[in-house]
Amino acid sequence: MTQIPLEADAQSVEASLAELAGFVDDTQEGWTRQVFSDPYRASREFVAGKMRDAGLEVTLDGGGNVVGRLPGRASAAGLSLKPIMTGSHTDTVRGGGRFDGIVGVLGAIEAVAAMRRSGVALNRDLYVVDFLGEEPNEFGISCVGSRSLAGVLLPEHLDMPGTSGQSMGRTLEAVGLDPQAALDNAWGRNSLHAYIELHIEQGPLLERSGHEIGVVTAIAGIDRLMARFIGRADHAGATPMDARLDALGAAASAVLTIEREGCGAPVHGVATTGRIESYPGSFNVVPSEARLWAELRSTDQGWLSGAKGRLAREIGLEADRRGVSHMIEWLTDQDAVPTAPAIRDLVARSADRLGFSWAPVPSGAGHDAAHMVHLGPMGMIFIPSTGGRSHCPEEFTPTADIVRGIQVLAETLAELDRTDSLAA
Amino acid sequence: MTQIPLEADAQSVEASLAELAGFVDDTQEGWTRQVFSDPYRASREFVAGKMRDAGLEVTLDGGGNVVGRLPGRASAAGLSLKPIMTGSHTDTVRGGGRFDGIVGVLGAIEAVAAMRRSGVALNRDLYVVDFLGEEPNEFGISCVGSRSLAGVLLPEHLDMPGTSGQSMGRTLEAVGLDPQAALDNAWGRNSLHAYIELHIEQGPLLERSGHEIGVVTAIAGIDRLMARFIGRADHAGATPMDARLDALGAAASAVLTIEREGCGAPVHGVATTGRIESYPGSFNVVPSEARLWAELRSTDQGWLSGAKGRLAREIGLEADRRGVSHMIEWLTDQDAVPTAPAIRDLVARSADRLGFSWAPVPSGAGHDAAHMVHLGPMGMIFIPSTGGRSHCPEEFTPTADIVRGIQVLAETLAELDRTDSLAA
Repeated sequence: MTQIPLEADAQSVEASLAELAGFVDDTQEGWTRQVFSDPYRASREFVAGKMRDAGLEVTLDGGGNVVGRLPGRASAAGLSLKPIMTGSHTDTVRGGGRFDGIVGVLGAIEAVAAMRRSGVALNRDLYVVDFLGEEPNEFGISCVGSRSLAGVLLPEHLDMPGTSGQSMGRTLEAVGLDPQAALDNAWGRNSLHAYIELHIEQGPLLERSGHEIGVVTAIAGIDRLMARFIGRADHAGATPMDARLDALGAAASAVLTIEREGCGAPVHGVATTGRIESYPGSFNVVPSEARLWAELRSTDQGWLSGAKGRLAREIGLEADRRGVSHMIEWLTDQDAVPTAPAIRDLVARSADRLGFSWAPVPSGAGHDAAHMVHLGPMGMIFIPSTGGRSHCPEEFTPTADIVRGIQVLAETLAELDRTDSLAA
Repeated sequence: MTQIPLEADAQSVEASLAELAGFVDDTQEGWTRQVFSDPYRASREFVAGKMRDAGLEVTLDGGGNVVGRLPGRASAAGLSLKPIMTGSHTDTVRGGGRFDGIVGVLGAIEAVAAMRRSGVALNRDLYVVDFLGEEPNEFGISCVGSRSLAGVLLPEHLDMPGTSGQSMGRTLEAVGLDPQAALDNAWGRNSLHAYIELHIEQGPLLERSGHEIGVVTAIAGIDRLMARFIGRADHAGATPMDARLDALGAAASAVLTIEREGCGAPVHGVATTGRIESYPGSFNVVPSEARLWAELRSTDQGWLSGAKGRLAREIGLEADRRGVSHMIEWLTDQDAVPTAPAIRDLVARSADRLGFSWAPVPSGAGHDAAHMVHLGPMGMIFIPSTGGRSHCPEEFTPTADIVRGIQVLAETLAELDRTDSLAA
């Protein structure tokens, strides 16, 4: 146990956040720093510099991750102990904010600085990683860097065409990365002692319940679908209501069915139709086709599978009733990833020791941590998001909350270093 | 009363329809001949030639209408009798068919030819008009030619910008028409003895009930609206269902409310959401905004006003319940136009005399006739649409039905010529 709490420097954290927020695409709203963009590449020089200032040895790995290593006392003594890893990402969605991912990278760097200031030296090597492109990109691939490190980046991901038609592999080359190296970048299974990530909640649960720290129970699984409805284009004036095959009517019903399914989740579950389109799109033509794109998320794998079946059935029944044909295409199927109970306990105990209130919370959002679970026991620390807002310019977390998160991260890193085995 | 039924020439009608169907935009599906397009301009030379062949004196009026005049015996004798007018349009919607409007123009020309073959001479002047651009165009204006003739084409219509940004007035100039002449083209109020238009039904009522001729009771009024819903963009994974302001949920509810309103119309009424859009349109973002474009149509003006109020109220209540703000913008407000009872009677009696079954039917679609009502008593003759289809390549009416329609038109024209006054 550390004797004195590790003090994070609020002023330095705030200054780093503000400086990183300067690397943005000025032509977009909010704080836009998308993967493979010029501002993103420039910002990572800044991140690497911050790592060096904190005493980390910095490399760019084959997966495009900026990796900072703090050698532990065991390595120096020629002993081999599994390393600890922490980190997150610094890319943002278009029109995004200044905290999502970023507090996990800059916070980890500050935690290292705080340990150094407090004279705390770890036995194990500590890796601080700024993962490449965590947010969904134009190729439809999120978590590019953590997938690479975890060995779950696949050749077919590199073949995915972007909006310009160029594949992700070619785009990696264009920014000076080697696609083959990204595929060969994997660490071994169970090579990590632990992976721990600090992140903003991106939802309202902590703010609502008044807790300062969230101990993440699981990262939600995601099922995404595209539903297509084919009816018949008829004259909207001359065709009686009972003679129509209105594709948009079926799609609108499906939107409400999807919403109801999310509202009926017993523990944690959400269901969202993010996009809808109708064709041909004239006032005076009954829509012949409509499409919608939706997703289900839950930390409860059982509910997810059940909801998937119920949705397909209910959407199908309603379309049939209308004489509208339909297809549902399931686009991704990502299982829920529970965090390691031993790491949850360590995080909770660190919070207790620091006098911060905490609550167990699910993560509805996906994270690099969901892939790092392939390399060892994984945990996450959440801090509150004001108004639950995220992926928008209004995304905000007060500095005091960020500092609390960094202190819990530092404490947890020190505790993890001391723990022999984290097996459940 | 004519002694022998006027025989329309089925072969000649079929040949004319096929020939006109050759003037199309090859880059589009179906039979596309939109107003101001090259194929449209070329087709009207063909129409003018057909008019001349039938013995009509052809002019292009200030409103871009191709007008064929058959001088009556009274004019020849120096007497002044109010003229009769018939006609329709030959432009089509994108991806449209070969019959909508066209049978009213080519059918009227054939009726004139049939009268000449039968030696029937009218006392009154008869005008056969191919009205300019009846279908909704890129400027959002339908019935350009009939509006001009009826004196309801306004300077603001000419100022409407098209998809390229060029105004309709400039576009008229580009095709050799004088915008000022289009505004100055109006005939006087009550200048017509009668206006009668032959048209395909564009709906399934005649086919369903097995009638050969539709005596149109009224042209439906139209109320169009754009509804905009503003919610809040939230992370679709991290935001619980009860913390969302989902603009698309409110819009989907509105689509179903609009549909229900149409289904509840007691006599004749339809309600259609023709288009929907959602923003920002990502899987993982709760939609912050959604828009829909819808219309109500009915021949019952009372139902229309009631439905408008009910819709606004119900859509508003549902949006409020969701905490989503909304605006409804009413875009057009076109009253229902009843046909003249005296003309309905004449059409029905003509059909009876020819041994054709007929039924009174509403017109859900708009027509040039709706504007010609400003110039005198108005009536319409419908013939069946196979499967009720229209505004699509599948639009079809068998030649036998078209010939029946032309015979009823010819009989009705002869009867109108004989009738002194059509006042109700």
